[in-house]
Amino acid sequence: MTAIKFWYEFASTYSYPAAMRVGEAAKEKGIDVRWRPFLLRPVFAELGWTTSPFNLQPAKGAYMWRDLERTCRRMGLPFRCPDPFPQHSVAAARIATALADDGADGARARFSRAVYRAEFGDGLAISDQNVLAGLLEAKGFDPFAVTAQATADETKQALRAATDEARSHGIFGAPSFRTPDGELFWGNDRLDEAID
Amino acid sequence: MTAIKFWYEFASTYSYPAAMRVGEAAKEKGIDVRWRPFLLRPVFAELGWTTSPFNLQPAKGAYMWRDLERTCRRMGLPFRCPDPFPQHSVAAARIATALADDGADGARARFSRAVYRAEFGDGLAISDQNVLAGLLEAKGFDPFAVTAQATADETKQALRAATDEARSHGIFGAPSFRTPDGELFWGNDRLDEAID
Repeated sequence: MTAIKFWYEFASTYSYPAAMRVGEAAKEKGIDVRWRPFLLRPVFAELGWTTSPFNLQPAKGAYMWRDLERTCRRMGLPFRCPDPFPQHSVAAARIATALADDGADGARARFSRAVYRAEFGDGLAISDQNVLAGLLEAKGFDPFAVTAQATADETKQALRAATDEARSHGIFGAPSFRTPDGELFWGNDRLDEAID
Repeated sequence: MTAIKFWYEFASTYSYPAAMRVGEAAKEKGIDVRWRPFLLRPVFAELGWTTSPFNLQPAKGAYMWRDLERTCRRMGLPFRCPDPFPQHSVAAARIATALADDGADGARARFSRAVYRAEFGDGLAISDQNVLAGLLEAKGFDPFAVTAQATADETKQALRAATDEARSHGIFGAPSFRTPDGELFWGNDRLDEAID
């Protein structure tokens, strides 16, 4: 089965609607999705940025919140601005990395959607270990076992390697989609084109 | 007749496909388009940028060129990278400002489409007065009369005022669309949503 790679960062705003629809959109076309969490912080640091570009450019940031609100309303998704923005996403990314990437309704996909929903739907702090443990539990995982795996050196290295791989593909933001022929598509707006 | 305002900058890459389709897309919904040329340079200068963000972020720039090429192919538009990028756009913007904004097939729209086509379809230098004069002539305008009007203080001031107005609406990039109820939409990808 052909698969596209869905590269996402838990702090990324437009990754929220993309994560919520990528599975169904791909399934309609008979395509599988590989879930690839990575970190944008090292990508931004290389440009000298210490925070989200939406904070560095206030007019663009104000527009993005309004546009994201419209996008969520159109999709019937709840929406709340997380505070602070961006959220520290490394703990959630390590957990997602530790979970198996076994398809559209697999462990990694279910946890990742729950994180986005908590962060941008309920405004919860996804840097909070209790919040993350609660999400794991709600999705039927053992929070203690998964957290132990998530904080193991092996997982930390796997996340760093994923971030390096993203950069090697020319990925500079999230969400990004990479097709088997190496084409890159950036943004929730390009999800359907990537699948087509 | 309801009208949306189409804010564009001649150096802006995604303003090319937007300019080529905004008239027809609006007409299909019985909506008129007001053409609003402005300059992004002062907007970028405020952020400390001296060139296009696509040059400041090479990975994003490389992606944009590939994405724009795909977009143009899908629309059946010719595509060439202008060299240098970004082009100096002030002379073209002053001419567009000097021409009457009289609807989808009016003077300003016809000249503006010709500029984008020359720049991103044929790779011509739109900072070159001879290129601009040629475009004016090809579209049935008197190059001498229009150029005289374009370089008058009144026109320079009108373009500065348009740029100030764009910023006052929170516009930070091009193309942008503003609906009569004050909603802002950014990017060629949001043209249809703006019209809807």
